[in-house]
Amino acid sequence: MDPDRLARAALSRLMEPQDAAGLALVQVAGAVDALGIATGELKAGPELEREITALLADSGAATSWAGMAAALKRWQPRIPDLAPERDLATMARLGGRLIIPSDELWPAQLADLGIQEPLCLWWRGQEQPLPAVDTSIALVGSRDSTSYGASVTGDLAYSLAQRGFTVVSGGAYGIDAHAHRAALAGGAGAVPTIAVMAGGVDRFYPSGNEDLLRAVCNQGAVLAEVPPGSAPTRYRFLQRNRLIAALSAVTVVVEARWRSGALNTAHHAESLGRAVGAVPGSVHSANSAGCHRLLRDGGAVCVTDAAEIAELASPSGSALPEQRQASAQVQDGLTLEDLILLDALPLRSTTSVEKLAAVAGLGQESVRAGLGRLGLLGLAVSERGGWKRGKASV
Amino acid sequence: MDPDRLARAALSRLMEPQDAAGLALVQVAGAVDALGIATGELKAGPELEREITALLADSGAATSWAGMAAALKRWQPRIPDLAPERDLATMARLGGRLIIPSDELWPAQLADLGIQEPLCLWWRGQEQPLPAVDTSIALVGSRDSTSYGASVTGDLAYSLAQRGFTVVSGGAYGIDAHAHRAALAGGAGAVPTIAVMAGGVDRFYPSGNEDLLRAVCNQGAVLAEVPPGSAPTRYRFLQRNRLIAALSAVTVVVEARWRSGALNTAHHAESLGRAVGAVPGSVHSANSAGCHRLLRDGGAVCVTDAAEIAELASPSGSALPEQRQASAQVQDGLTLEDLILLDALPLRSTTSVEKLAAVAGLGQESVRAGLGRLGLLGLAVSERGGWKRGKASV
Repeated sequence: MDPDRLARAALSRLMEPQDAAGLALVQVAGAVDALGIATGELKAGPELEREITALLADSGAATSWAGMAAALKRWQPRIPDLAPERDLATMARLGGRLIIPSDELWPAQLADLGIQEPLCLWWRGQEQPLPAVDTSIALVGSRDSTSYGASVTGDLAYSLAQRGFTVVSGGAYGIDAHAHRAALAGGAGAVPTIAVMAGGVDRFYPSGNEDLLRAVCNQGAVLAEVPPGSAPTRYRFLQRNRLIAALSAVTVVVEARWRSGALNTAHHAESLGRAVGAVPGSVHSANSAGCHRLLRDGGAVCVTDAAEIAELASPSGSALPEQRQASAQVQDGLTLEDLILLDALPLRSTTSVEKLAAVAGLGQESVRAGLGRLGLLGLAVSERGGWKRGKASV
Repeated sequence: MDPDRLARAALSRLMEPQDAAGLALVQVAGAVDALGIATGELKAGPELEREITALLADSGAATSWAGMAAALKRWQPRIPDLAPERDLATMARLGGRLIIPSDELWPAQLADLGIQEPLCLWWRGQEQPLPAVDTSIALVGSRDSTSYGASVTGDLAYSLAQRGFTVVSGGAYGIDAHAHRAALAGGAGAVPTIAVMAGGVDRFYPSGNEDLLRAVCNQGAVLAEVPPGSAPTRYRFLQRNRLIAALSAVTVVVEARWRSGALNTAHHAESLGRAVGAVPGSVHSANSAGCHRLLRDGGAVCVTDAAEIAELASPSGSALPEQRQASAQVQDGLTLEDLILLDALPLRSTTSVEKLAAVAGLGQESVRAGLGRLGLLGLAVSERGGWKRGKASV
């Protein structure tokens, strides 16, 4: 067994997600020695501590750093629970595996997390490449979704999956569940949907979503950075959100209350420089207040359909929505003078150039030139020496 | 009779709103000489033409300038209709008046339109100062409003009027009418609402809004830049929109289709550097598609209630909404370690510091310090030597 893999498996049980001191220790000493130090088998010298301090200062995470002694005390109570071989065997039995950053299957986009990159990912699902960032879209939102949120999530996830995007979400009731369900139904690509869990992937939590998450496993992937058996605590939910954001090109909040974990995911996406979309809804719906807050604070783009989300994922414009441009009206390009003239043209009976000049407040030459232009566009027609509106204008 | 006033009254009939050549001519030659030139009584020399050309080039309006000869031809057909004394008499009979930029009652904010500032305003309603820009809010939207649009408009207009704001809108069915109705009901200030018309103010158009517009006259003001008897053409609607935007600190689009005149008003506000608000709605409602377009294009701020609109009108923060800050939760300021500890605390039974250290993955000293902090906030309580959650956390 690769000692680095085994050490990371053990460290993921010893340390809470995004334990800055632990992540810095691994970065400075490597996973194997970090585990030795964390378990007391190796001694950490002052040089190592200085390096960690510098690294944490560089990455802006120094505030939670109280020195190696404090970190060791924090890890110490969990040392007796370490059994990485057992955890790996559990995953194998469940048809899963552990991946670490040196693996080819490791999602490259997680490196954008910097010091916050997880030590490893516990992964249930077929062994196949996870999608690249530009084809992954996070759809997140409240557990207590409304019928509006459910229907919008379903439309978006289905349509995104049909376009070959992978939907990324949590495993909760509400928006998360609607997103997975519709992505599985619409799935055209290899991995239609990914569930990133706050607790261990050995258990499908909440139990009401067990069948759904099993289906996600079969067609997509269920991931967590915490080892099998870990409880989904509130802290782990908050940390899990950074993985959803980091895996995805765009994080879309479909429905969220004024305070909602989904907003936390959006903020992670923002701080990673990833696009954030928010779905608007009724101002009377408390479940849209969080989305409106995101729109109002300026960090999120208003998105109303899958095409607009796809556009955010590839800002080059390759996925630009088209149907609306087709509804442009023929008079859109008119000059102000021609618009005035068009207004002055009667719908049924015809009128003379002289009368048009008076009504429109234009010179007769301008009227004649304008009628020529409008005629070419089908906006004006001449009948028996008079003029009226053309069919294209009605 | 003041010759400047009389000349502007005449010019407003001769020229369409925002006739760049005409406005430049008035600016260069003054209204009285401009009328003389427009009617052929005075001759425009090449020097004057050069000045107009330069002025239009400066203001970016040169594209529609085809020389004085073309402008004279445009105005010529309407010369026989000129009867400014009759128009002024009509206004007096209707209890109204004409105001011009040199009047004390002229709304100073219209000067922000630059060369596009109207020549005059035909005004029905009591003679009282029109509100300053920072207390005026435009509420605009579709004629074919939904019940959602009607209810939101009603809430916003009533609540804005109650706060002493003046609502500015057009005179159409739908959002315009709902805005005036609710502002009249909520009106606490001197001028609760202003209707800016595309046609002459002698006629209340559309006729179905006659009673409403009469009430706006009685308590507020009905304004137009075109003289009595002018028809509300599409071109004049588009030009009228610039006045609604220029009169108001904020232009709020409550409901609008993907193509809607209300978006034109919003673009005028944007180009004046005024704030634009858009009310979100269902992604399934075609009547909100224009609002979402504004939000998406980045020019508009998402607004969901009167407090948020008031905030846009006075960005200094004096009108900041409060109710939401009050709902902040006591755990909002916690560090990550304390959040983890809070998660680990049982709700009913108590637990020991040692067990908390193992569950939370924290050192025992950190747990003790954290329990102290949580205890002060009422988030943790100690009972018979053990610890559990406090009432403030539940």
